[in-house]
Amino acid sequence: MERSELLNRIKSRMPEKRYIHTIGVMETAIQLAELYGADVKAAETAAILHDVAKYADEDWMKNIVKEHGLDTRLLDWGPEILHGPVGAWIAEHEFHISNEDILNAIRFHTTGRAGMSKLEKIIYIADMIEPNRSFDGVEKLRNKAQQDLNQAMCACIRHSIAFLVHTKQPIFPDSIECYNHYYK
Amino acid sequence: MERSELLNRIKSRMPEKRYIHTIGVMETAIQLAELYGADVKAAETAAILHDVAKYADEDWMKNIVKEHGLDTRLLDWGPEILHGPVGAWIAEHEFHISNEDILNAIRFHTTGRAGMSKLEKIIYIADMIEPNRSFDGVEKLRNKAQQDLNQAMCACIRHSIAFLVHTKQPIFPDSIECYNHYYK
Repeated sequence: MERSELLNRIKSRMPEKRYIHTIGVMETAIQLAELYGADVKAAETAAILHDVAKYADEDWMKNIVKEHGLDTRLLDWGPEILHGPVGAWIAEHEFHISNEDILNAIRFHTTGRAGMSKLEKIIYIADMIEPNRSFDGVEKLRNKAQQDLNQAMCACIRHSIAFLVHTKQPIFPDSIECYNHYYK
Repeated sequence: MERSELLNRIKSRMPEKRYIHTIGVMETAIQLAELYGADVKAAETAAILHDVAKYADEDWMKNIVKEHGLDTRLLDWGPEILHGPVGAWIAEHEFHISNEDILNAIRFHTTGRAGMSKLEKIIYIADMIEPNRSFDGVEKLRNKAQQDLNQAMCACIRHSIAFLVHTKQPIFPDSIECYNHYYK
């Protein structure tokens, strides 16, 4: 699908701030895909669609999980964890994306997981470091992303878990499997 | 078993520093058991034996896991994670402890788990706050332990995970299940 068509179709699903974030993720993901020899068009598509379910109704998302055989652990979690897997479902069924790597990049962009593909890492990292993000340490993560994709992923998942613990939020098991993948 | 006999039998298994720590855990666990109406003698026994496998050989521990049907996930982990479950095995088979609550308190004293018993919480917390421990925030944990056992457990597991992430150490999944039990 053309970039402009995709962008038009997601614009109606999110407030302007999230759309601007999406553009940031797209530009960052394209740059990282070029730098690390990944499929640039796939990175663009995954980035544009990564937050497509961000503002979907929680009960609606849980119904999608139940009715379409998604990971049933998701039923115990809130929108922050649901919107990745449900976003992948929307990308597949409403946007007719069939590239499984793109769908996984959308699916795991919030939690990460053990054994991520290059594209999955690019979207995870781009989501965290895109130019509109501003948090303590983001500059260090941006630098790492230009040097080594795995080291950047490793630093990003660690940052994410530290943030969740600091703010007393629950941690989805896949994130710990991702963290342990790098720190074991 | 008498306290003095138990103490004598563990003394040969650990350096003096660890023995002093064990005495600290014992005294703290007894005080918490009295405060929260737990079985004081069980707390004493679990505390004395909690680190009984701390200096056991890693390969020997992995053999115990394999030969005696312990949790096979342990085979991918080091002594820090192995010594709790293997300590429970030693307590059962060498010290003839049959009280399952005591064995679980030893088994899960490093990782925690979802749905801990009162005794398990007491040993986990006592291990972290006994008088010989000195780290940033330990005084706050000690105060919490005198006020509310669940809030103390909740603060201790969070502290533990924050420490592991800070020091780039892997996190056993049971610890995240324990953390999520309190923060979901």
